[in-house]
Amino acid sequence: MVQYQSIDRTFSALGDPTRRAVLERLGRSSATVSELAQPAGISLTGMKKHLRVLEEADLVRSEKVGRSRRCELTPGRLDEARAWIDQYRQMVEGRFDRIEALLDETKGDPR
Amino acid sequence: MVQYQSIDRTFSALGDPTRRAVLERLGRSSATVSELAQPAGISLTGMKKHLRVLEEADLVRSEKVGRSRRCELTPGRLDEARAWIDQYRQMVEGRFDRIEALLDETKGDPR
Repeated sequence: MVQYQSIDRTFSALGDPTRRAVLERLGRSSATVSELAQPAGISLTGMKKHLRVLEEADLVRSEKVGRSRRCELTPGRLDEARAWIDQYRQMVEGRFDRIEALLDETKGDPR
Repeated sequence: MVQYQSIDRTFSALGDPTRRAVLERLGRSSATVSELAQPAGISLTGMKKHLRVLEEADLVRSEKVGRSRRCELTPGRLDEARAWIDQYRQMVEGRFDRIEALLDETKGDPR
C-alpha cells in the first residue's frame, strides 16, 4: 500500500479555487473567518471546512482572538510539491527525447 | 462564483499517491491498464477511475490497442501549477519580509 503523505494534502488543498483564493487573500493580510467567507460568497461553515483542509496541509494557521478566529499564511510544504512537479517534467521530457531518438534511428541518419 | 479551471484538475489529480505512482511508472514506458493495476494492488475498475482523473487533467492519454488499452504520459498543464506555487512562495516571502520590517520599525533603528 502507498502511504498517505504530506504532499497529498498539499496538492489536494490546492486543487480547489476557493482555497487558492483564500491563500491569495491571506497573502495581503491576516483575516478572520467571516472576512474570508463574505467575499467568497459562502457560509461560515463552508469556509471553516476549507480552512481545516488548508490547516491540515500546513498552508494556513489560525488562532482565536477574542470572539473570532484569525487566519494567516504559513510557508507550508510547497517545496516538496514543486520538487515533484520538476521531477515529473524532467521525466516527461526525457521520455519524449528517447522517443525522438528512436524515431531518428528508425529513419536512419538523414545525411 | 469562482470558475472551475484546469489547474484544479491538475492539483487534484496529483493529490493521490496511486495516481502519482502511475505517472512515475508511465515515465519509464507506456503500459496497459492491467500492467498499471497489478503492481498498485488495486482492481482494474479502481485503476480505470484513477486513469480517468489523470486523462481529464491532461496528464495521461490512452488508446485502445487490440483488446487492451495502452496509456502514456502527456506533458499536461504542469507549468500552470508550478507558476501558481512560485507566485504563492513569493507572496509568503514578501509577507514575512513586511512583518520583519514592521518589527524593526517598532523596535527603532538598532544603531
